[in-house]
Amino acid sequence: MANSKYEYVKTFEQSTTLLPATYIVVRLDGRGFHKFSAKYNFEKPNDRRALELMNAAATAVMRDVPDIGFAYGISDEFSFVFGRECRLFDRRESKILTTVISTFTSYYVHLWSTFFPSKPLMPPLPSFDGRVVLYPSTQTLRDYMSWRQVDCHINNLYNTTFWALVQKGGLDNAQAEERLKGTLAAEKNEILFSQFGINYNNEDEIFKKGSIVFRDYKIEGAGSGNIVATPAGSGGDGAEMSRTQQEKERKRRMKAEIVTEHTDFIKDEFWQQKPWLLSDTGS
Amino acid sequence: MANSKYEYVKTFEQSTTLLPATYIVVRLDGRGFHKFSAKYNFEKPNDRRALELMNAAATAVMRDVPDIGFAYGISDEFSFVFGRECRLFDRRESKILTTVISTFTSYYVHLWSTFFPSKPLMPPLPSFDGRVVLYPSTQTLRDYMSWRQVDCHINNLYNTTFWALVQKGGLDNAQAEERLKGTLAAEKNEILFSQFGINYNNEDEIFKKGSIVFRDYKIEGAGSGNIVATPAGSGGDGAEMSRTQQEKERKRRMKAEIVTEHTDFIKDEFWQQKPWLLSDTGS
Amino acid sequence: MANSKYEYVKTFEQSTTLLPATYIVVRLDGRGFHKFSAKYNFEKPNDRRALELMNAAATAVMRDVPDIGFAYGISDEFSFVFGRECRLFDRRESKILTTVISTFTSYYVHLWSTFFPSKPLMPPLPSFDGRVVLYPSTQTLRDYMSWRQVDCHINNLYNTTFWALVQKGGLDNAQAEERLKGTLAAEKNEILFSQFGINYNNEDEIFKKGSIVFRDYKIEGAGSGNIVATPAGSGGDGAEMSRTQQEKERKRRMKAEIVTEHTDFIKDEFWQQKPWLLSDTGS
Amino acid sequence: MANSKYEYVKTFEQSTTLLPATYIVVRLDGRGFHKFSAKYNFEKPNDRRALELMNAAATAVMRDVPDIGFAYGISDEFSFVFGRECRLFDRRESKILTTVISTFTSYYVHLWSTFFPSKPLMPPLPSFDGRVVLYPSTQTLRDYMSWRQVDCHINNLYNTTFWALVQKGGLDNAQAEERLKGTLAAEKNEILFSQFGINYNNEDEIFKKGSIVFRDYKIEGAGSGNIVATPAGSGGDGAEMSRTQQEKERKRRMKAEIVTEHTDFIKDEFWQQKPWLLSDTGS
Repeated sequence: MANSKYEYVKTFEQSTTLLPATYIVVRLDGRGFHKFSAKYNFEKPNDRRALELMNAAATAVMRDVPDIGFAYGISDEFSFVFGRECRLFDRRESKILTTVISTFTSYYVHLWSTFFPSKPLMPPLPSFDGRVVLYPSTQTLRDYMSWRQVDCHINNLYNTTFWALVQKGGLDNAQAEERLKGTLAAEKNEILFSQFGINYNNEDEIFKKGSIVFRDYKIEGAGSGNIVATPAGSGGDGAEMSRTQQEKERKRRMKAEIVTEHTDFIKDEFWQQKPWLLSDTGS
Repeated sequence: MANSKYEYVKTFEQSTTLLPATYIVVRLDGRGFHKFSAKYNFEKPNDRRALELMNAAATAVMRDVPDIGFAYGISDEFSFVFGRECRLFDRRESKILTTVISTFTSYYVHLWSTFFPSKPLMPPLPSFDGRVVLYPSTQTLRDYMSWRQVDCHINNLYNTTFWALVQKGGLDNAQAEERLKGTLAAEKNEILFSQFGINYNNEDEIFKKGSIVFRDYKIEGAGSGNIVATPAGSGGDGAEMSRTQQEKERKRRMKAEIVTEHTDFIKDEFWQQKPWLLSDTGS
Repeated sequence: MANSKYEYVKTFEQSTTLLPATYIVVRLDGRGFHKFSAKYNFEKPNDRRALELMNAAATAVMRDVPDIGFAYGISDEFSFVFGRECRLFDRRESKILTTVISTFTSYYVHLWSTFFPSKPLMPPLPSFDGRVVLYPSTQTLRDYMSWRQVDCHINNLYNTTFWALVQKGGLDNAQAEERLKGTLAAEKNEILFSQFGINYNNEDEIFKKGSIVFRDYKIEGAGSGNIVATPAGSGGDGAEMSRTQQEKERKRRMKAEIVTEHTDFIKDEFWQQKPWLLSDTGS
Repeated sequence: MANSKYEYVKTFEQSTTLLPATYIVVRLDGRGFHKFSAKYNFEKPNDRRALELMNAAATAVMRDVPDIGFAYGISDEFSFVFGRECRLFDRRESKILTTVISTFTSYYVHLWSTFFPSKPLMPPLPSFDGRVVLYPSTQTLRDYMSWRQVDCHINNLYNTTFWALVQKGGLDNAQAEERLKGTLAAEKNEILFSQFGINYNNEDEIFKKGSIVFRDYKIEGAGSGNIVATPAGSGGDGAEMSRTQQEKERKRRMKAEIVTEHTDFIKDEFWQQKPWLLSDTGS
């Protein structure tokens, strides 16, 4: 039985190829995580286990998909960044997007019991939606990253103050919301300090800065000025690496240790110390 | 700290809205499942537990995403069909695609231990990639479905014969492949029957026909000609249901039993008996 | 000198293939025609020569691009409709769109002096922008057409009344606008009749109905029930015509007379009398 | 008569917004110009009037669409380049594409009689198709430009030699093609020189280099190092100009003289002398 009679339906498949020489960001978000976090009694304003589960899943994604350069997570959101020269799946949007989302989900569910051993998952199960965004230059990508980190700060300062008012200040949710309406950062800091003796600066870095996950290539001979981790690519100008170089680069990535930091990357310093992150290969 | 300085990066987000009044198919496939099935010693040519796990995950997806009209699975592949009038996420492609893929993955991993209790999952974990395909008419959608079911048949006949030659005929993989090169269906049937005493027609329906998963609305008063399950929509002509109708329709779906059948749907009969499947709401 | 060093830039070219088995509409609009019509003193509310120039250009486009099934024009706007089975340029969006726009512009400029012999074109010259819209079913396409014809009616009734108030009623533009604010069709008809003795029903059909341009295949043996103009295609189900059939069909189109009518096509009658217009080949 | 019943068809309109902070190239090509050039007896290998008509049309497009930074033409092809910060039509692809194509066509037809006074246009009229391509960096854009200029050279050397063999060497087309098969540039130069006494280097620059059309901002005080034409933008980093700046910039463009040169721009020199061309505003 030949299938030729029906095979014409394949012509209805359309695929989007992502513009070359641009950074690819896949950002995912927990679906209905407000309800989900209530169901499993996540701690407020931040649940460290839930964040560490997110980070563990992201680390596993980076292990399974070596083309990813680095990732950044806040709350129930994670952004995965592919270098400008990335050729994964010939840059087909659907494949890149679904591979990241599915792999992340797989580890999130699998690792759940490690982080929440006493709270078995019950349907409806957690899931994530996601999208692809392209950034054509290092500057626009860094601005994207800064946008997310500023958002982390804004949300965390708000939530920290909100839950202090509720948990320690005796306000109900509506009252706390009313109290914070229109307040600036300085006022929230002041409420925290004067009312609750909390110095926001002393809050944990993972809450204030989010989590950046990356491959930690050691920079050898730092004192001698020799940098081993020179980017293999040549700058988003379309000049491609040879097959051999690509394979070598791939192996180097797979061997690298994947680490998580909670640090400011809005300033230049972070990127200057890890020059391979914004090289065109993202390696 | 205002975020306005960086917020311009949101303008780089682009989204695709799926053409209205067309059927939406989300098809997913296991990534690297050849290797994956070897790792967990899936039975050849078909592993019933693996197929039932796929079906269980698909059923859960339909439960969590009531907009899906029906689904069809073969091997490590599943197609989810949304009706032409579907308004889920305002028909944004990324959200529909990732929600289905992520929810499926979530249940696949979660339910794994139910179907493979003695084989705990170990990294790298299973994952799925997927794509969206649009079909503008009932005929093209049915041809898509027929294409997949014919593919199921072709692959299963081949695999059944191949593994009979290997498992019972003493051939190695290369020899079996060579033996089957260029053979037609009749010859494979003949090999199975004359060499191994296997009548292919007696093979299990789940292997030969795949699995169609759908909501089983009871058709009341069959004898009286009254059909309760009349489609609520009016035919892909863009006339939309009222909010109230939509909500009522949604509840009806959520209450319906979701069943799995292994049956021929290339012929008209299957669809005639379940007229709600190809109504415009897919309900 | 080989060009290989730079040829990688071709990989940045992306192309959109229009979904098969859907009607393709290319709609164009005059750019800045408010100003343009003032520059050349177009008559108000309608300039017959300007409309006939639009129709002549559209007819020429249909002659040069035989894949177009029919076209409909109002004011400085024209919609060109390709049948569902159209394979022109492998359904590449940019090529279809720009070919129609460019060919139309070419004839508009070339034929200008025929319709406006005493008003030579002076820069800035007329130009048109356009877009592609897909309609997946005959019903949605007909609703698109009806939308444009209703728009024609609404605009023409308004403009006819507005310019009667200005040209014969002595109001200035702002006063006329104010007078018509919030009026229903019946009131505008009443103003025309009681104030200016104009029976709107007696206005020219080209103004009231717009212009539909199509190939006029003679239906032979109307008395005997034989219809020669049977559509060659088989219904949007993807079954394609053979090469020979396509070539024959193409020749038939190129020989057909292209006519312009100003008639109601919101009702079924128009389409029933010209069954080839909504056949899948649009022929 | 309200139009609400049919207005739902507007939801079928989909539009593509071009990725911000990338160069936009609109490239157009004459449709069927092989036949067209034969019809009007264009001179071989190059028809100067035909090229100058192309250039005149391109200059007019740049006058009417001030957002275009520069343009480059060879044979019946022209590329129009918009700066990375271009906001024209909110970067909607269809509007940008069709506006350029239509405006170009309009002037090509209108100016035809100036360049070919003795050859009136006859249907089928000339038309152009086109496409949009995005380049995310100055390097990739320059490589695109170099690709076209190298193509110009390769084609012109071939055509010059081919037509010398035919027009002066007595070969027919097939023989000339056969003679040139597999020849390198040096061999073609040698054929030209030894057989026909033609030094390819002395051929006209417009044929060898193509035509680049740009706004000629005078660089004042060249001796003093002061550059008036400093780009107004700040580098593709998304920082946008204020409304006032944009308006001022727009006026500056509209006043600038548009000039055509036939010069090498593969080397850096051309771009260094006209720094405003590759600034982010393309101004």
